[in-house]
Amino acid sequence: MAEVQTDITGTARATRVIARCRELALCTETPGETTRMFLCEAMRECHSHVRGWMEAAGMSVSVDHAGNIRGVWAAEEAEAPRLLIASHLDTVPNAGAFDGVLGVMMGIALVEELGGQRLPFAIEVIGFSEEEGTRFGVPFLGSRALVGGLDDALLARTDEHGCSVGEAITTFGLNTSRIAEAALTEKPLGYFEIHIEQGPVLEAEEQPLGVVESIAGQTRMEFAFYGEANHAGTTPMYLRKDALLAAAEWMLAVEAYARGVQGLVATTGRVTAEPGAVNVVAGEARVTLDVRHATDAIRNEAVDAVTVTAQKVAGERGVRAVWEKKSEQAAVPMDGRLTTMLEMGVMAAGIPVRLMVSGAGHDAMMVATRMPAAMLFLRSPGGLSHHPEESVLPGDVEKALAAGVEFLNVLAESQGGK
Amino acid sequence: MAEVQTDITGTARATRVIARCRELALCTETPGETTRMFLCEAMRECHSHVRGWMEAAGMSVSVDHAGNIRGVWAAEEAEAPRLLIASHLDTVPNAGAFDGVLGVMMGIALVEELGGQRLPFAIEVIGFSEEEGTRFGVPFLGSRALVGGLDDALLARTDEHGCSVGEAITTFGLNTSRIAEAALTEKPLGYFEIHIEQGPVLEAEEQPLGVVESIAGQTRMEFAFYGEANHAGTTPMYLRKDALLAAAEWMLAVEAYARGVQGLVATTGRVTAEPGAVNVVAGEARVTLDVRHATDAIRNEAVDAVTVTAQKVAGERGVRAVWEKKSEQAAVPMDGRLTTMLEMGVMAAGIPVRLMVSGAGHDAMMVATRMPAAMLFLRSPGGLSHHPEESVLPGDVEKALAAGVEFLNVLAESQGGK
Repeated sequence: MAEVQTDITGTARATRVIARCRELALCTETPGETTRMFLCEAMRECHSHVRGWMEAAGMSVSVDHAGNIRGVWAAEEAEAPRLLIASHLDTVPNAGAFDGVLGVMMGIALVEELGGQRLPFAIEVIGFSEEEGTRFGVPFLGSRALVGGLDDALLARTDEHGCSVGEAITTFGLNTSRIAEAALTEKPLGYFEIHIEQGPVLEAEEQPLGVVESIAGQTRMEFAFYGEANHAGTTPMYLRKDALLAAAEWMLAVEAYARGVQGLVATTGRVTAEPGAVNVVAGEARVTLDVRHATDAIRNEAVDAVTVTAQKVAGERGVRAVWEKKSEQAAVPMDGRLTTMLEMGVMAAGIPVRLMVSGAGHDAMMVATRMPAAMLFLRSPGGLSHHPEESVLPGDVEKALAAGVEFLNVLAESQGGK
Repeated sequence: MAEVQTDITGTARATRVIARCRELALCTETPGETTRMFLCEAMRECHSHVRGWMEAAGMSVSVDHAGNIRGVWAAEEAEAPRLLIASHLDTVPNAGAFDGVLGVMMGIALVEELGGQRLPFAIEVIGFSEEEGTRFGVPFLGSRALVGGLDDALLARTDEHGCSVGEAITTFGLNTSRIAEAALTEKPLGYFEIHIEQGPVLEAEEQPLGVVESIAGQTRMEFAFYGEANHAGTTPMYLRKDALLAAAEWMLAVEAYARGVQGLVATTGRVTAEPGAVNVVAGEARVTLDVRHATDAIRNEAVDAVTVTAQKVAGERGVRAVWEKKSEQAAVPMDGRLTTMLEMGVMAAGIPVRLMVSGAGHDAMMVATRMPAAMLFLRSPGGLSHHPEESVLPGDVEKALAAGVEFLNVLAESQGGK
């Protein structure tokens, strides 16, 4: 039943991948936009499309009890190991068509590219049920199940309507007592994820593809500055303890620090001032901080430096600075050997290799501790992501397909195939 | 029926002024705090106390139809002009005991200080019904009526419960059709207001009293900075257009400008960042600006300068700055001749004269265009105002009373009295 691939060009195959992504974007819980959260009704329709394409490509399809849809393209031999090609099918609210979905469609397309050929390893294409963390505040529910991490505590978490993860699973017609079956029982050959960059770097450098070396570690903090709320008319400048100005000075210092360290990003994205009146000097200001780097030591050094700076700039104004670490996530390196093979695939397709760090989290992060993982990025026009106008260039999809095919060849050779 | 004043000391009289302020602080619409807005029920109880003290001091008391309580201490001769001594009896929510109220109590105390003596001018002590602008969003309702400015448009304004100014007047038992009677029919000798400084300047300089030369003009604006909302992890520092950092840089530039101009205050009290997420570079930031100075030209120059700076700092970051003027109020100078007499009174009481600009608005501002006005400030411990712990020092009240008595003497002499 496999579609015959050889009768259409690479351009047409890329166009089909994009068309499929756009078709899935119509599966939404909110009409007029694309919103598809963990096991919502729209996910059923999404699965139905994905299943159709997987089966047409000759794959055996199942949905595990964490809601991941899984299609297997069998190997030459039954005992052969498996390569996972996966990404997620859920979206943020009012999303674009490509974040996550593209990786699943690329997995199917790579199987289609084989034109019926069997490899010395099986390919399992997985569409994870959840990665964004939007509905339950915890991301990676789908890939967690794959590594046995979707535990009872997570199942008990509720969304804003009081519906738990477990209830959502049951409502979808799945069985929470069988979630363990979703976990891998043997170590796969590797995990390969294709994803849009969600950033502007490849576009700025006019590169179509990026090979991910590492997913950056991240520290989230909240800083509070306590000064003195005073009357804006009666308090001379020299007698003020303006908490917001202390915060402003610190935000600029954070930026200056980050600009001075290669690969470091530091963001102060949310700020509030109290009492927050036009005619009152701010007595209190709060600012969030998000720091990321591929090297944990560099990130930790940055965090230390900006806390010292907070104390310094605040102190000079008679303002008190306090801070709290909200979360911390170590960097996750991709597998060196598998990534080298991916680089070889990219080169074999005639595309320059741009190694890069992913500043965003991905399912690859969740599985990388259990198996060799590699990731390929496609340029994001305008750096847009989590946005209805998020897109990919057809030429880049074509190049990614070509690189993916070559990567499978390299991997097959390493397994003694071909 | 006048109380005999000569049997108690200046200290005791100051203590009594403070005690009366604290007694009125118990007249509140919100138990446990002091909140007394325009013609609320608590204002009835407040009036009852004030009327009692005024009558005990020998004054003829009435309440006009704008809700101002007015006590007249007659002059030696019926045809003599009147000196108004006034301030307001309303408060902000959760207020202190002295803002406004002190000025009315000082007016009564100054009449008491006369010990029954008649002057070549009458003294009318007025407790204005409204100055803070809290209930209806427009300040000075009481003093507006005095100068014929409480018009139909203002009467139609409603509070958050949909009750209009006119309805509040009627509910209090007054008659909106007789509001015009509250207006002065002839030009008074002058207007004298005693008020707490509501700022830290006198305290910082260890001065008990300040003579107000002018009430600062004020410009209120809102600035918006439009950059690009981007992913905090995937957008390198050099590719960002961070609207909040543009705002931060501008706020510090505003501060630096204000610090460089004598008497200028510029405040950025409220800030918001959009989307306002820890992991998103701010695409939009809004900041309020409040600029005040005694000289309108200096204020206007400051406003021009900081708008140019907004454009400059934003432009350097690829961020767009726009602004809107929300309100503008010219500076109001106090009357030179009356203020000189007040200075003479302060000096005669043995107190150093500290001329100052009021950064806050006062009823004196409303009446100064129609009659000579002068204002005396009392030091505000901690610079506190609009706060339950707002206070005055008994020694300062005693000095203000002494200065007020001397001021009345100077004025009496100028009228050929004594």
